[in-house]
Amino acid sequence: MRLALVGGTGDQGFGLALRFAAAGHEVVIGSREEERALKAAERAMELLSEHGYEDATVEGKENEEAVSDADVVLLTVPFFAVIETVRGLRDALPDDAIIVDVTVPLETAIGGRPTRTITPWEGSAAETVQSLVEQPVVSAFENVSAELLRELDREVECDVVVCSDDEDAKRTVMELAEDIPGVRAIDGGPLANARIVESITALLIGLNQRYGKKGIGIRFTGIE
Amino acid sequence: MRLALVGGTGDQGFGLALRFAAAGHEVVIGSREEERALKAAERAMELLSEHGYEDATVEGKENEEAVSDADVVLLTVPFFAVIETVRGLRDALPDDAIIVDVTVPLETAIGGRPTRTITPWEGSAAETVQSLVEQPVVSAFENVSAELLRELDREVECDVVVCSDDEDAKRTVMELAEDIPGVRAIDGGPLANARIVESITALLIGLNQRYGKKGIGIRFTGIE
Repeated sequence: MRLALVGGTGDQGFGLALRFAAAGHEVVIGSREEERALKAAERAMELLSEHGYEDATVEGKENEEAVSDADVVLLTVPFFAVIETVRGLRDALPDDAIIVDVTVPLETAIGGRPTRTITPWEGSAAETVQSLVEQPVVSAFENVSAELLRELDREVECDVVVCSDDEDAKRTVMELAEDIPGVRAIDGGPLANARIVESITALLIGLNQRYGKKGIGIRFTGIE
Repeated sequence: MRLALVGGTGDQGFGLALRFAAAGHEVVIGSREEERALKAAERAMELLSEHGYEDATVEGKENEEAVSDADVVLLTVPFFAVIETVRGLRDALPDDAIIVDVTVPLETAIGGRPTRTITPWEGSAAETVQSLVEQPVVSAFENVSAELLRELDREVECDVVVCSDDEDAKRTVMELAEDIPGVRAIDGGPLANARIVESITALLIGLNQRYGKKGIGIRFTGIE
């Protein structure tokens, strides 16, 4: 699949770009500035090559161009930028694209702490995005450690909770998630459940701080 | 320790009563009606005896009497009843007791679904309780399956996130949690984080429904 990572120069987007490229997808890192996107793509290609993924492809493009022919568009910008970003990209998004919201309404968006969230009007970042676009929005990848994503020689030991009101889009993103070694995709139900999943990110950031770790994640027990 | 389970005739309270009694604590099941408390205690003693815990002690008492000499008071009533219950018990709570809030503000409290939460004024059920008492409140055990608790021959395969603004009380409850075989206690930080942990319960209930399970829980990866 052709995947665009809007804000893919950031930690989370860059880590996802690496993993999806390693899995054989055509990945485009998007940025507001083409120059930064190109540099990030170059760095990604270097890292992938160092780990033996010689055939991986990562391009760098300005956001609008990056999304224009994507099958799946992943939003990995900071939460304070997501509304403006989506508004700016609306006309460029393909009608049949799936939009994956990875953003988390951390309190940092208003100068606060990353261990807390703020509550947007719609209830979650994902529902905020859905209120701005016609395409199906899927919430996913909020709880995956960017650190672990970047370490290409390690498995990403966690579950990815996937929420959407569109069952087909949800299934597609669940399959995409499981292209990352070690990841199990979990059907998180309707998009409104993103408010829970997003808040778990704040809890995980606090756990990383208290336990002096970087890659704490979650697994659900008793599913099989 | 001497533990009182207020509302211990319900599924979650009864399951916790079994496990704590099995671990050797003096357990008192509390209920508004002494008769129901006595019956539940009798049933608990039978189950414990069947599983070889001959020395376990579970008493049944009216709530007010149950808490009066407890070291730790666990609130396991439905959320709709918690404010009235705590107000009614305030004078009976020992000054040096630790109050453990296990309640979750599920939408069922207002006739809605167990897969959704409502947001109380203070942000969480645990903070609501803390606003009503002087004793330190600890949030814990919301995400432990009542089904698994009841199956005394099985380990309870999950983490228990423990949140409090009182570090000593938090440590005591973390140790208590780890008296349940299979449970790992996780320092969840300040009491305000209970709003995240409580909402995870709603997510788990939804997962149980979607996956046709009864005992889905969480584990954190990458902590050690």
